[in-house]
Amino acid sequence: MREAANNEAAKRLCSSTPTLVGVEPAIDVIPGMTEQMILTSGAPLEWDRYSGGQRMAIIGGAIYEGLARDEADAEAKLASGEITIGSTHDHACVGSVAGIYTASMPVLVVENREFGNTAFCNLYEGKSPRRLNYGVYDQEVHDGLKYLEEVVGPVLGEAIKRSGGIDLKTMMRRAVNMGDELHSRNTAGTTLLTKELAPHFVAAAGEPGADSARLLETLAFLAENDYFFLRVGMAAGKATADAARDIENSSVVSAMTLSCCEFSVRVSGLGDRWFRGPLPDVEAQLFESYSEDDIEWMGGESMIMETIGLGGFAQAAAPALQAYQGGSPEAMAQTNESMYEITVAEHSDFRIPYFGYRGTPVGIEIFKVIETGILPAIDAGLAGRGGGQIGAGILRAPRDCFEQAAAAFTERYGQ
Amino acid sequence: MREAANNEAAKRLCSSTPTLVGVEPAIDVIPGMTEQMILTSGAPLEWDRYSGGQRMAIIGGAIYEGLARDEADAEAKLASGEITIGSTHDHACVGSVAGIYTASMPVLVVENREFGNTAFCNLYEGKSPRRLNYGVYDQEVHDGLKYLEEVVGPVLGEAIKRSGGIDLKTMMRRAVNMGDELHSRNTAGTTLLTKELAPHFVAAAGEPGADSARLLETLAFLAENDYFFLRVGMAAGKATADAARDIENSSVVSAMTLSCCEFSVRVSGLGDRWFRGPLPDVEAQLFESYSEDDIEWMGGESMIMETIGLGGFAQAAAPALQAYQGGSPEAMAQTNESMYEITVAEHSDFRIPYFGYRGTPVGIEIFKVIETGILPAIDAGLAGRGGGQIGAGILRAPRDCFEQAAAAFTERYGQ
Repeated sequence: MREAANNEAAKRLCSSTPTLVGVEPAIDVIPGMTEQMILTSGAPLEWDRYSGGQRMAIIGGAIYEGLARDEADAEAKLASGEITIGSTHDHACVGSVAGIYTASMPVLVVENREFGNTAFCNLYEGKSPRRLNYGVYDQEVHDGLKYLEEVVGPVLGEAIKRSGGIDLKTMMRRAVNMGDELHSRNTAGTTLLTKELAPHFVAAAGEPGADSARLLETLAFLAENDYFFLRVGMAAGKATADAARDIENSSVVSAMTLSCCEFSVRVSGLGDRWFRGPLPDVEAQLFESYSEDDIEWMGGESMIMETIGLGGFAQAAAPALQAYQGGSPEAMAQTNESMYEITVAEHSDFRIPYFGYRGTPVGIEIFKVIETGILPAIDAGLAGRGGGQIGAGILRAPRDCFEQAAAAFTERYGQ
Repeated sequence: MREAANNEAAKRLCSSTPTLVGVEPAIDVIPGMTEQMILTSGAPLEWDRYSGGQRMAIIGGAIYEGLARDEADAEAKLASGEITIGSTHDHACVGSVAGIYTASMPVLVVENREFGNTAFCNLYEGKSPRRLNYGVYDQEVHDGLKYLEEVVGPVLGEAIKRSGGIDLKTMMRRAVNMGDELHSRNTAGTTLLTKELAPHFVAAAGEPGADSARLLETLAFLAENDYFFLRVGMAAGKATADAARDIENSSVVSAMTLSCCEFSVRVSGLGDRWFRGPLPDVEAQLFESYSEDDIEWMGGESMIMETIGLGGFAQAAAPALQAYQGGSPEAMAQTNESMYEITVAEHSDFRIPYFGYRGTPVGIEIFKVIETGILPAIDAGLAGRGGGQIGAGILRAPRDCFEQAAAAFTERYGQ
């Protein structure tokens, strides 16, 4: 029964058809979003448990959105509940690092056409290590966010609308054939997206009264930011993983999340309950002048990519990553190989050329994790104390989460 | 002395900076081109030695260019010398399969800015198996060539001019990191080129009186033809290899070529002399319904890519090729690995992620080929009897050419 349910989960993960249909202000499209709400990464916490960069990012979001005058005002309103905090995963969103969403921010809208659900992700802030999602809020960060809101978001949104919807499943499949694992490497994805959008930019530029400068700026933003596609992939990942939620008897992981103080997982057959554990272990490759002591956890949900069989589960497709996050091509292939031991299927579409086009391992199964002792490998960017990105590496989802989930599963469904 | 000369050859191959600067009619830019001349692949032959598809392609070129009314007229004028035949390599060109150039055809212009020389390649005809370069000439082929001449060539040329020149060295380096070996796989190259050109298309579309339809058609042509970049790479390859010609004492191969009846090589220290051998052996992966008996040799010079350390010399960068030309990823890595035994250097820029970013083997050395018995591996498309592409595979340059070259080298320079 569990096996059939897990096969169904894998089937839904593989047969999902995420399609990019637009870019809209968060308030207009995200279910349950309000003007006074700030979404952030991680299983929900009381306000006083948010600390460090994630706390700063929430406060920054409140100021950016005009919900608070300054830090003290934001602190007071967050403590009183006048400004509310929502958990991204409960609003069909996933957050990058701190994962801050406020009402006016533009979000990518991705429909899973096969299953009818929709998911969202906000836009990449650009490659400066100083970004709201890495716990920094200052004039430069503010201006960058405004630029996304006023230029990049609307221009992209119009091009996507003109396209009639972009088939992300096909694009992601191609990107994996071109050296992306679509978590820490997104170069091919971003390039393919740009190529796909190019004719719609040209068509827009050719219309009377068109503002070519805005179009060119947005294209330049895409050209400069090889990481841009990660957010598109994350929205596709969330739209895909949500289709595999709430399958009775399934012990497949439907979500993983990180806040400043916890790593948590959800299991398909166990509804919306988070199984919370400690912060993850990491093999880090840090930018020059940083040490592991400088790493600070600020949250993160880009591991939605691993949840759908990419990232650490497709490392062998992306040997070019070795320079960025460390490890030899052989070690990456080995890590990737071991993920087959904790998953229930091989992906029908995402395939690894170097493994003779074997499908990526997909559908993390909690009992396999416990029995093998192999923890899910997650490719990730790393934040530093005081804010900013300081490196990248491979995280391991903590065993605790899986043990708690297994206990709950056994309690609910029996042995 | 030979070693120093060969190091110089490798240095020139690695330090070349091919830059795409325009698309122009052949007659306007190719040195020595005349209105009555048809260029074709291979070391020069008497007219009566051209047979099969290559002969048909030359005749087709004559009719296309208006030099002959029909096949009989073309035969007569080619026999009498009224229409002359030139060898692509002697005109800074390289040909794909039959490699037909006539005066009015648009050609990509690539400058090697480091060394000041220029090379050319005509445009990809599109993915129909029926193409002039595969020995077919009919109304459909005619219309396709006219389309290149009237739409794709001029539109691309304008976009390239607007760009101020496109740095192909960087683009090719990136493509190798994205799964291309740039001979039989050019998906990343074409995608990167499209991304690079996109802003110039948008800028063109935004100008008063712009014809967006032509721009969109050309973008669509690029989007449909993942192979498009091969011609760009070939022009870059020729511009690069020509910089390593005529180095006194160098036993490095400076060109390889195939006609309908011979495979030939040139050696840097031995000037423009071709060392001619038999047709190559091939491990073929044919399209459904074809057998090896259907293969017909019609010429080909895309092996300029192997001459500069790509194609078969970078197979391990392109495991996705296994479906197209056959072989497991392991076999491809092994073939690639063995090319280090017959080359003089590792490329400074083209590096193979899967080999821990080892530079590709570059600079084929004739004595190493003879001593090891390892023949250069060449990724290639295969033509069929009666015209058209029928598959792909790995060719081996014949040993004879290298033995003759070695004898001539020893005669010229002593032991």
